[in-house]
This record gives sequence, C-alpha cells and structure tokens, in this order.
Amino acid sequence: MSRRTLLAGTAAAGAAAPVAVLGGALGEGSRARAAGATRRLTLYAEALPGGLFGYGLAPGRATVPGPVLEMYEGDSLEITLVNTTNQRLSIHPHGVDYSTDSDGSPLNASYNDPGETRTYVWRSREMFAAAGRRFMPGSAGYWHYHDHAMGTDHGTLGLARGLYGALIVRRRGDILPDKQFTVVFNDMMINNRTAPNTPMFEADLGQRVEWIAIGHGGTFHTFHLHAHRWADNRTGMLEGPADPSQVIDNKDLNPGSSFGFQVLAGEGVGPGAWMYHCHVQFHSDGGMAGIFLVRNADGSMPAGAQAAIDRFHEHGHHPHQKQQGQPHDHAHHG
Amino acid sequence: MSRRTLLAGTAAAGAAAPVAVLGGALGEGSRARAAGATRRLTLYAEALPGGLFGYGLAPGRATVPGPVLEMYEGDSLEITLVNTTNQRLSIHPHGVDYSTDSDGSPLNASYNDPGETRTYVWRSREMFAAAGRRFMPGSAGYWHYHDHAMGTDHGTLGLARGLYGALIVRRRGDILPDKQFTVVFNDMMINNRTAPNTPMFEADLGQRVEWIAIGHGGTFHTFHLHAHRWADNRTGMLEGPADPSQVIDNKDLNPGSSFGFQVLAGEGVGPGAWMYHCHVQFHSDGGMAGIFLVRNADGSMPAGAQAAIDRFHEHGHHPHQKQQGQPHDHAHHG
Amino acid sequence: MSRRTLLAGTAAAGAAAPVAVLGGALGEGSRARAAGATRRLTLYAEALPGGLFGYGLAPGRATVPGPVLEMYEGDSLEITLVNTTNQRLSIHPHGVDYSTDSDGSPLNASYNDPGETRTYVWRSREMFAAAGRRFMPGSAGYWHYHDHAMGTDHGTLGLARGLYGALIVRRRGDILPDKQFTVVFNDMMINNRTAPNTPMFEADLGQRVEWIAIGHGGTFHTFHLHAHRWADNRTGMLEGPADPSQVIDNKDLNPGSSFGFQVLAGEGVGPGAWMYHCHVQFHSDGGMAGIFLVRNADGSMPAGAQAAIDRFHEHGHHPHQKQQGQPHDHAHHG
Repeated sequence: MSRRTLLAGTAAAGAAAPVAVLGGALGEGSRARAAGATRRLTLYAEALPGGLFGYGLAPGRATVPGPVLEMYEGDSLEITLVNTTNQRLSIHPHGVDYSTDSDGSPLNASYNDPGETRTYVWRSREMFAAAGRRFMPGSAGYWHYHDHAMGTDHGTLGLARGLYGALIVRRRGDILPDKQFTVVFNDMMINNRTAPNTPMFEADLGQRVEWIAIGHGGTFHTFHLHAHRWADNRTGMLEGPADPSQVIDNKDLNPGSSFGFQVLAGEGVGPGAWMYHCHVQFHSDGGMAGIFLVRNADGSMPAGAQAAIDRFHEHGHHPHQKQQGQPHDHAHHG
Repeated sequence: MSRRTLLAGTAAAGAAAPVAVLGGALGEGSRARAAGATRRLTLYAEALPGGLFGYGLAPGRATVPGPVLEMYEGDSLEITLVNTTNQRLSIHPHGVDYSTDSDGSPLNASYNDPGETRTYVWRSREMFAAAGRRFMPGSAGYWHYHDHAMGTDHGTLGLARGLYGALIVRRRGDILPDKQFTVVFNDMMINNRTAPNTPMFEADLGQRVEWIAIGHGGTFHTFHLHAHRWADNRTGMLEGPADPSQVIDNKDLNPGSSFGFQVLAGEGVGPGAWMYHCHVQFHSDGGMAGIFLVRNADGSMPAGAQAAIDRFHEHGHHPHQKQQGQPHDHAHHG
Repeated sequence: MSRRTLLAGTAAAGAAAPVAVLGGALGEGSRARAAGATRRLTLYAEALPGGLFGYGLAPGRATVPGPVLEMYEGDSLEITLVNTTNQRLSIHPHGVDYSTDSDGSPLNASYNDPGETRTYVWRSREMFAAAGRRFMPGSAGYWHYHDHAMGTDHGTLGLARGLYGALIVRRRGDILPDKQFTVVFNDMMINNRTAPNTPMFEADLGQRVEWIAIGHGGTFHTFHLHAHRWADNRTGMLEGPADPSQVIDNKDLNPGSSFGFQVLAGEGVGPGAWMYHCHVQFHSDGGMAGIFLVRNADGSMPAGAQAAIDRFHEHGHHPHQKQQGQPHDHAHHG
C-alpha cells in the first residue's frame, strides 16, 4: 500500500499533473497565493490495535505515521477530517498558513468532537520581497502535522498514541524522489515501535530516497544514518561551492521539529543493511534503531544483508546487549 | 513602559540618529572597530518581589527579562552596573568583544560585590577578511546578556531568579521592527512565569514583529510559534532564491543559546489569538505556553480572540487538562 | 606530543605533501573519488588507567580523545586497528564512505574481537552534480570516529570509557590552523574529565585555533566559548556579506553530533584566561568547564591569567560554589 498522497494539483480535483507545474515561476518574489490550486482530501482518524490511533486516506486504512501529504508552494489543501473515535482530536500543521478556525487547537475551539467531521484549510505561499533586498520566507519545507487536542490542550495523548505524519511543501523545480520514508522519534520509540519491530526501509542501489524526520513527545534525540550524509539546509543538497551549509549525518530531532533530505541509496558505499538510530546511547540500546536495507540495483539481496537482518532480530538476546529481549514479529514498512 | 533601549549612536551621548548610520559601509571587509560610536548607559540590578531579581535602565524599573540592548556592528556599549542587592552578581554578554575585566565571571574577578558599582565595556565589529576569500564573522546577531556570578561561578542562582535580557547587534541596513518581544525559556518557565501568567504579546495585523528567543537554566526546550515561520539564519529572512536556509516554525532553545527573527503579524493567516509554546509535551502542558494576540489592523479585537484568551485563562481547569490550576491574575507584557 | 596526524597524502605512503594538494580542483562538480590518494595508518586501541580506553598512533600512546585524523575530499584512509584489549571493539566514522565490512558495527559483523587486528577503509568525495542545478554533498566537515561495539551493539561502554576522536575532511583550499583542540562533551564530562582537571587549551594571541567539538553519551549539552564566536556553517567563517549563516558562541552539542570552527585567539578581546563550558547550569557547576589560555603574542603569561587559573583550581572550594571539591592535579592538553 502506498502511503504517499499525490501532490496538490494532481488529485481528483483535476488540476495539472505534477510534471506540468515543475516549470513554475519560482523566484519572481511575488505573492502567489491566489494563483495556487486547491486540492481536497478526506482524512479518517481511527482507533488502531494496541491503544494506537492513526490518520488514513480511506476508512480502515489509518497508519502510524499517517500518510505523507504534499503540496507545492502557492497551493492549498482542504482537509475534511472524519473523527471515527470516541476522543476529542484535531489536525494541526507546521509550516503552512491557516486561519484560527483551522488551527487545530482547543485554544481556538478548532477540533473535532468524538464522531464529528470538520474541515481544515492549509494554504502555502512563495517567498515575497521585504525591504532591504531580503525576502520573507515561503512555505517550502519538510514539515509535519499532528493532533493538538487529545488528552490535553496540546494533544499530548494523541501524539503519544500515533496521531502524526509528514507534510512536504515543495518549491517548483525541486527534485522529486523515488521513495519516501517517514521517521518519527516519539519518546523512546520510532514510529511508536522499538527494535526489532522498527520499520525496515528498503531501496535499490542508486534510488533517490527522501527521508522526513520528525520529533515528538517529551524526550530529546539525535537522528543518525550510517554511510549517508546530507547538507543541513532546506533540501539536504548544496546549491554549489558557495553554499556554506554544514554537511552532517547526525542531527538533533526534538519535539515539534522536522527536517528532510534526499540521498542516493548506497551511493559510494554499496548495498547492504545500514543502520539508522538515535545516537543517544541508552536510546539506541533501548530499541531506537532500525535498518535501511539497500538492495542491489536489480532488487536482489546483497551479500551479508540477510545475516545482518537476522542479527538485528536477535538484537535483544545478544550477549553484549544489556536490554531486554522483545518479541520477534518483524514488520516491513516504507 | 517601553523596555527597548535606543540603538547605540542614538542615545544621550549625542551621536548620529539611527537613520543616519543605516547607509554605513558594510561589506568592505575592513576592521571597523575604531570608527564606531560608544554609548554609555547605567543598569540597575535590583531585587524584585517573589525572590526575583532584574536589570533596569533606571532605579526601581528592573524587569524580568531586562531591557533589550541594541547596537550596530562597530559600536560599543559602556555599561555602568549598579548592584543594589545584597548578592554578588555581574553582567556577561554573548556575541560581543570584551576584555577579561568585563567578562562578568568570577574566574576573572569580574563582578559586582553587594552594593558595588562597576563598569563593563562591550565592543562589536564588522566582518573582516580572512585568507581564502572567507571572512571572520562580525558581531551581528540576536544575542543576550545575563548574570555570571550569583550563587555559583556560573551565575546559576542569578539566572534562576531572572537576571537576563536580550542583546541585539545589527548590521547597517538591517530592517528595523515595529515591535520586539523577548521570550526566555528558563527551566520550566517563560520569562520566569507559567501559564496563564505568561506574557501575552500584542501586535496589529501586518506589523513587523521581532522575536528574540533565549534559553537558560538546566532543561531543554523547543520554541514553537503558531501560524508564522522564519528562516533558520541570521535574520529569519531569506537573501533570495539561492539562500539555502531551512524555513522553520519550531527550534531548539537550550541553555545559553539565542536566536531572533521578524514576522509580519498575522500575514497570510489573519488576526487572532495565536499560541507560542514549548513543543515538549509535558512542558507545554505544564504551563510553558502563551498567546501572541494579533489584533485587527486598526487595533481592534478580532472576532473570537477574547474567547480564546478566556479559555487560556481557564487552561488549568479544562477537563482534558491534567495539570493543576494556577492563579488567574493575568499580566500583559511586551 | 603532537596528537595531530598528517593529512592524507602526506604520510609514510609517500604521496604529495599537503602544500601540493591545496591547489586542487574543487568546484568542478565531478566525482573525484578515484583520483584521491590513499593513506595507510595503524591505530592501537588500548586500556588506560582508571578504567579508560583510548586510540593511539603507536603502541603505548593511546589518549582520550584519540588523535585527530585528517584527509582531503577525494582521499582515503586505510586504518589497521590493533585491539590490544580483552574487549570487543571497533572504529566507526561519521561523514565518510565505507562498505558494510568497515561499518564498525556488530550488525555488519564489523569489529575486532579481543586481541584481533582488522582493517577499516574510509573514503571521501567532492560534491557532485544532481539534477536541478543542485549538488549532492561532498565529505568535507568536522566529523568524528568512535567505537561501535564495546558493551553493547552501539558501543555504549567504549564511548563511556574514552574510545572517540576527531576526524576532519577538508576541501582543497580550506584554511589550515596553527593549533587544534578537540573537546568532547561525554555525559557530564569533558574529554572524560571534570574541572579543575579538564584540559587547559593554550594559544598565543592571534594564532588561528581550530576547535572540534563532539558530543557523546546519553545527556544533552550546549558548548559555550567566552569572548570568541563563529558562523554556524561548515567552516565557522562567512563566505561574504551574502552568507546568511547565524553567528553564534553557544551551540547544542549532543550525542553523535560534531562541529568545528576556527578563531583567532584573543582577537579583539586580548589575551587572558577565557572559559569554555557547557552552558547547562548544573553541568557547568558540576565541572563541565575549562580554560582557553590566550597568552601574549610572544608566548608570555598575560596579566591576571595566573590568578584566574589559580581560582579555577580552587573552583571546588569557592564559598559560592555548591559542587564538591576535586583533586587539584592539573593537566595541560592540546
């Protein structure tokens, strides 16, 4: 099942396909809000097994994290949220524009009561000129959305139970990925799971993979990916030799923050089972680790990778490992 | 009462007004220290009710946080600190130049004994050329100052009790704001208060508002502002389409760090009661939240805003809220 | 004893001296991996007094932190790691390219058993063109290396005991420093020491000093340096007036992260005993502080510096200080 939604302008509303919008006029500095396309979608907030909750694009399809929502700068999303649960909940986005009635906060009485359906509107914009040759920022970024009403006025219970997902606003001309992975560090879990049940993300050698990393909860983390790196800027890529951004492979990932980047799977290092994990030592030891499986270019399994995966599944029983063992029901996601 | 001090070069010393210095020669790469203006001011460190301490620009006017101090790159501040308390204390700046005797640290015997008056000198500079077509950074930034001597050699007691404030060093040509808000995340408090007694910052729709965010104490936080965003760089604005900075609305705000940015109040989202808060869930639930009230352009109250403010005051009694109630004496700041 | 190793291309392998490679062709956007020089070195992992472990470039020379390893983008390091201990251990780098068998992780069966010798290969690259006028990042950065196998599958015991060091990948043309200091915030210690036994770093006024700051362990920190500042980008310097980077003197330094910058010792502020410390108040009070001694340009002791150093040694006994006293055996490092 694909958890990625189509870009704004490509959905049922019938606007132009994404290939058509890529040639858009970024950089003219004008306010482009009025010119954008509006896409309508329905999200279903549902109770899931194990006390979890999720958002989904169709009834019975809720997941943790929810679907990746995407739009281009200047476009809008009109989201009809169906609350199928017996809890107060909402959807609150980062990075985009919304009126107080789409804030998703109890402060502004913007939430769904149990069983209620409510519409939220998110708008976006391109950068626009300020004084002094500077520009007020546009909306492009690797953002996220989440509940802001379940349990407390800040949605603490909804977040703890899985009501979160990635939101991407792209500039016209941004490079599109082959695959996308959402990684949410939420208290001591990744996507509300711990090793060895954390998602195993898979790609073929050389595929362009987009990672969206999101922090939630009440603890602090650092996201580390083995054998791959990215620029600490908007895209993860450099604008050229004068781009001063630091290149990193480890970054703070704390509550409410998010970032994203694209890598070429296994580029320069080859295929294999590469770890991603929180670099706080007792967090990784405690299960905040997973595998990024880079397959051979033809999709076949690289030498040694299955053995590594098997070791990962035996993780909790390793004589050097202090943590307690965990059930071995392995789940692939991505 | 305005808590903002005049820019260096504009004060009693009688130097040129700020409009005159905006055309300065930034970018020539030369060391401009000698050419700068020096401004003299007196700060009073005072005991306040509730065990707090504050800095103020006149006797009996100390506040928490202290006044925003500002200067242009190349200028200097000569601060006479009057210690009206019975505690050892000092003033230590971030970002600017000072000799060891203005360090504000007991390590360098740089502090005021109880009742003592002492002068501290802070200098600033423009960027200057290094080898390889690079430049050593100038002083421009959203900085801060704080005690470094009360309680411990690191000023831990002084910081806990409120001895801190914002310091801004501007480049010539930087855009000046209409309003300024200082937000200090200090342990589990904002400006040593918790909701609903946290500051309510107010602006009219479209006003250019400058936020200076500062972290202190011993806990880690993330600062989130609803419905507004900024570039994660020196000014919060973009230099143009090639500026690679990530645009964010949530940022780590940890002890000793600071950042600032300007937003146009309510731009693209409209007026209303917008929340700012720490995004660590148990911190926001515990009272690290406040309201950014964006009034209508004519200064009148927008629809729904008073109801939101009233809900915020009843915050501690909300049935979904786990935290204990707090007194309802509301205080406006800003 | 110098703890700095020669740059790749300058060592026993007999390749060109560094002065020869500085004129290299950075910026052409091509993949330069094949063209690079390979340097071979042997590292010895050894047990040290006090339960510590270290890496060293010769038998009996292990230190905490280990030696600074350096290379230019495009070059490779081939490291033969001799495990002289009775523990499983490895070496895992950040920022560079390696195959799964050089991953240093038990996941990929990449470690040294007790007494075992094993070779790890680290490669680096220049940036190379992606679509859309962007570039996939090269390897240049202030990185680090560390054990990933002692105690747990994430090397938690090895890190706690000192198995870490700095790794620098430079771009051709980067400015080389006069001195280098490695500062590792590892749980509540600096380089596994607490004040007053933390390293005292020394330089003469005006020397170009390179700081490499690394975070490890399970706690979160902020690194602050008095009277000096740097740009929050790859080099710590600005590319010119259009470089949007924030200038800072305090930065989060959390597990697995690293950054570096160069300052001119005492520039604009003069010589003296300047503090560096964690700005989390109870961490600095607890001993996460040290001295950056900037001597006069002729190497002589500046006025007041010895008195400051003496006060620092009496740190634990200061009447304002809450922390317990510690032994006074002072150690110089750097």
